[in-house]
Amino acid sequence: MTIISNNITEKVFNNDKKSISRTISKIETGNSNSIEILKELHKNTGRAYRIGITGPPGAGKSTLTNQITKFYRQQNKTVGIIAVDPTSPFTGGALLGDRVRMSEVGCDDGVFIRSMATRGSLGGLSRKTIDAADVLDAAGYDIIIFETVGVGQSELDIAKAADTTIVVLIPESGDSIQAMKAGLMEIADFFVLNKSDRPGADSAITAIRTILMFRNHDENDWTPTILKSIASENVGTKEIADEIELHKSYLLKNCIFQKNRQKNYKVRIKEIVEELIKDELWKDHRNKSLEESIVKVTTGETSPYQVAEKLFREFKSSV
Amino acid sequence: MTIISNNITEKVFNNDKKSISRTISKIETGNSNSIEILKELHKNTGRAYRIGITGPPGAGKSTLTNQITKFYRQQNKTVGIIAVDPTSPFTGGALLGDRVRMSEVGCDDGVFIRSMATRGSLGGLSRKTIDAADVLDAAGYDIIIFETVGVGQSELDIAKAADTTIVVLIPESGDSIQAMKAGLMEIADFFVLNKSDRPGADSAITAIRTILMFRNHDENDWTPTILKSIASENVGTKEIADEIELHKSYLLKNCIFQKNRQKNYKVRIKEIVEELIKDELWKDHRNKSLEESIVKVTTGETSPYQVAEKLFREFKSSV
Repeated sequence: MTIISNNITEKVFNNDKKSISRTISKIETGNSNSIEILKELHKNTGRAYRIGITGPPGAGKSTLTNQITKFYRQQNKTVGIIAVDPTSPFTGGALLGDRVRMSEVGCDDGVFIRSMATRGSLGGLSRKTIDAADVLDAAGYDIIIFETVGVGQSELDIAKAADTTIVVLIPESGDSIQAMKAGLMEIADFFVLNKSDRPGADSAITAIRTILMFRNHDENDWTPTILKSIASENVGTKEIADEIELHKSYLLKNCIFQKNRQKNYKVRIKEIVEELIKDELWKDHRNKSLEESIVKVTTGETSPYQVAEKLFREFKSSV
Repeated sequence: MTIISNNITEKVFNNDKKSISRTISKIETGNSNSIEILKELHKNTGRAYRIGITGPPGAGKSTLTNQITKFYRQQNKTVGIIAVDPTSPFTGGALLGDRVRMSEVGCDDGVFIRSMATRGSLGGLSRKTIDAADVLDAAGYDIIIFETVGVGQSELDIAKAADTTIVVLIPESGDSIQAMKAGLMEIADFFVLNKSDRPGADSAITAIRTILMFRNHDENDWTPTILKSIASENVGTKEIADEIELHKSYLLKNCIFQKNRQKNYKVRIKEIVEELIKDELWKDHRNKSLEESIVKVTTGETSPYQVAEKLFREFKSSV
């Protein structure tokens, strides 16, 4: 624990946006200092309500996030947004002259918007995103919204780590079937059918209802509803906020809130341990041992699984 | 090595489709027998040429895969297709009365189509997909096509593990920008602009070209081209097959082919070692130790990183 990290921790507690940004950047690049900061921040976390907004590309997740944020701001609640979505305007900035539409809420002092890189070899996307949420939580934001594109396991993991997970769909043909295949149906606490003024809205709702009948029911009796919205015209925003409130009360009343958070801690701690082990595992000499074996794999003398088992034995005898 | 696995190995070598299917199912469910089979199969792998076809949802990857497969069949080459794409008709079957369009090539004896589940808690998607490709390779298929949706890290990892990676885009506005953000631009050996009869095709090509100018160049001098296609009308298929051939010759002539395959083996072996360690790591007693710590995390007495470091120390002293 250094004086530097103490200073930055204090500044994060005071919602100093520059310090928040710097801390999240440290998390993203894997700077070891970030771990000390996160340890210090932890005691001040747990108060923010976390909302996951996910769905297929083009469903209007960012517009919806924008509207919900404005709604909470009118209630004087502060909002932190973390966008993990390669198709989100939040992640943008102007690219090659293509001016990406800027968020209406971006200049509000009670709003913090951050995008997380969805690629690159650094890995640990879901852990880093949740670490970043902890920073915003410790900084005192009342609401944290994860906006993630609903394709790919990491993105689903992030959406699932929220207290309330909203799946956004549109009336396009086949959209609900695709959502089911992508694993979106299982993680939704409720659905929003956005762009619901388009043709096919009612049959889309029927399709989602039918699929929901086949969903595995857990022990509790929460039934996901399907709300309609037209995010671009701010239609349905209040109903969505009400449904979030309803779900929150349900979680609290039935003691599921705390249980879910513990489940999320478990997933997260496991991921951290696995990363620590990987760092130890792939030190130079073991990488070299791997390199040397690969030629033999190419010639068919040995197989990937045999080499892996050998490296595993070597690792076990070394620690 | 059991007699059972010997039998099934022999049958796979003889392209017995039922045995191929059963082996891939074993790989998917993580049946330990599959590892013994893969070890035995390995010496017969390495002959198939592997093609990755990826891109955003709706780009027409399946239709293109279909056409390319028919083209190769006319040349008497056999083709194995592995679809890792929640939006692909190949992964389908009829769902809830929604009849998903069946592949035209599905009944051909020289074609094997298999979909891999993109979700579920089992994990290891890219390893399992490449294991499945090894089964098809050992069964003697000349060409293996990975069709993956270009969103999500695992899906990109799979596409990257091919000898030639094709990124399919469409002229939709913003599509190329999205592709860049999703990391598709870096992995393309060449591009196909599908549905190129739609408005905006030429400006899409200009956009891709501009982005390509900013791409990191590796040591070699291969320049990705952009081909046009209308997959639904079989326009452009021959040109795509020619470009694959050109890229293959380039790889072979410059000794990059073998180097890339070695790189892929390396990634794959690392993943296997990490999975072996995870199995050892999360045995019952350590899971219990984790459960016990979580309450203290909830109360703020300790933090996720402190618990993770404690579990890491325990693991090291136990192996």
